[in-house]
Amino acid sequence: MSLLLTGSIGLDDVKTPQAEQHDLLGGSASYAAVAASFFTPVNLVGIVGEDFPKKFLDLYRKHGVNLDGLEIATGKTFRWSGEYESNMNNRRTLSIALNVFEKFNPTLPAQYRSAPFVFLANISPQIQMHVLSQVTKPKFVVADTMDLWIDIAKDALLELLTKIDCLILNESEARELMKDASLIKAGRALLKLGPKFVCIKKGEHGCLLFGKDLFFSAPAFPLEDIHDPTGAGDCFAGAFTGYLAKTGKVNADTLRKAVIYGSVIASFNVENFSLTRLQTLTPAEIESRYQSFRQMSHFELH
Amino acid sequence: MSLLLTGSIGLDDVKTPQAEQHDLLGGSASYAAVAASFFTPVNLVGIVGEDFPKKFLDLYRKHGVNLDGLEIATGKTFRWSGEYESNMNNRRTLSIALNVFEKFNPTLPAQYRSAPFVFLANISPQIQMHVLSQVTKPKFVVADTMDLWIDIAKDALLELLTKIDCLILNESEARELMKDASLIKAGRALLKLGPKFVCIKKGEHGCLLFGKDLFFSAPAFPLEDIHDPTGAGDCFAGAFTGYLAKTGKVNADTLRKAVIYGSVIASFNVENFSLTRLQTLTPAEIESRYQSFRQMSHFELH
Repeated sequence: MSLLLTGSIGLDDVKTPQAEQHDLLGGSASYAAVAASFFTPVNLVGIVGEDFPKKFLDLYRKHGVNLDGLEIATGKTFRWSGEYESNMNNRRTLSIALNVFEKFNPTLPAQYRSAPFVFLANISPQIQMHVLSQVTKPKFVVADTMDLWIDIAKDALLELLTKIDCLILNESEARELMKDASLIKAGRALLKLGPKFVCIKKGEHGCLLFGKDLFFSAPAFPLEDIHDPTGAGDCFAGAFTGYLAKTGKVNADTLRKAVIYGSVIASFNVENFSLTRLQTLTPAEIESRYQSFRQMSHFELH
Repeated sequence: MSLLLTGSIGLDDVKTPQAEQHDLLGGSASYAAVAASFFTPVNLVGIVGEDFPKKFLDLYRKHGVNLDGLEIATGKTFRWSGEYESNMNNRRTLSIALNVFEKFNPTLPAQYRSAPFVFLANISPQIQMHVLSQVTKPKFVVADTMDLWIDIAKDALLELLTKIDCLILNESEARELMKDASLIKAGRALLKLGPKFVCIKKGEHGCLLFGKDLFFSAPAFPLEDIHDPTGAGDCFAGAFTGYLAKTGKVNADTLRKAVIYGSVIASFNVENFSLTRLQTLTPAEIESRYQSFRQMSHFELH
């Protein structure tokens, strides 16, 4: 089944302790759309400026991403620049320029409105709700968020939680939103705010999926060298939702697999800057790493 | 097969944000021995003072722990007191009194020397080596350690690593010992220092087992309330080694199961102060929680 996906699209400058690259394709929707495209057709809703390079439009198209919902507006594309500390876990935003993003108020193309699966990648909860309100009868809605919205748009975020099926967020965001040091308590408390499922991303420690009758703990892939962690969480969430959309079914079995496929795509993406690694990623590589995840977490019952 | 086990034995005062208890049975060997006793007979090597309560000797005996190697020396038992912060992850040592520990230089009873499985619970690496040197032909030797020995006895610890089969340590200790922020790199680098296997405990994030051809990532049990984390790592390591001794075999299959059984016993132990919870723990409860670990980490291949 197809997937409707919205979020930010930007041009990034990224500095790591080893290297620095400029004018990269970035934004939550870019990462999520390409990650999801390995599993299902993606209908993208977003905005870029007139300066947005044609090569990035071609990149989306190469991945079968439908751009009918992509607005090319007068002005400049959203820009972000950031720098990672030596442990690659902490990053500092050096600059942000919203540019065309300030006028992002999308109207969905008619053919997008019947989307069964929806992923609201990280962007303001107001825009996430605005997009979602235009979808006629969604079957399963997943939303990502970030600390910024917990700080400046908490009420809107809490309203969003009543309208979605699954929330994906970071460990630190879960603790902050629920004011609880225990991730287990925070995850279960979040379920009471609306979503049927909550997925907490823990970076190098993997992730946890909470549901009413479900608890799943997934490991992280044992990477020795992380070249650029930017977009790892977006790739995870995009592939997670993309896999669910591919199967068309949401149950304990598909959700577990979706978490692993999300982790697989994210683990590849951090091997290079921006979406470079995913350009050459093959289905065989995805399946092989999926099996590695199984191998590293499996144990016999008896 | 029987297990030879040494480490500290002490009387603890523990303060958590919720409660405070005094004169508890503590020490790495106490936790490890009782945890291991669920799987295999334990031969304990340790030292206590004349003030050591008879009820704790009875507790060991109730668990089938052989006390032929327990020295009751003139003087007072080792004492430790500590306080946990509200998140239960950080603890502060309030006081330590080595007491009889200062003269601990054990000679193993003859019948202990043929032990096939050995667990050197946390204690100085010099004592760990002194005990190990008296074992005739050990089949599998596991050692735990702590940050203190990395700080003040690093050379002895590095020598110990060349004599053991498996090292168990905390996340922060692995990073500190190998001077590497990446746990994956630290774990693999530790393998080059001697042990065939390295197990890194990550608390609420589970643990990682590294071997030459093995990588296993185990989840933590999703506990909402941790009453007293003291001894969780010792219980993990004791049950880990105890399970291996029970099977008598060390391979990828038994090592994975040993990690899970270690996690199971540790997860029970933190439900109450000291070794209180393990006093009523039944084999059926252990098996049930083992199955819960499987349930929360299992996913299908296809």
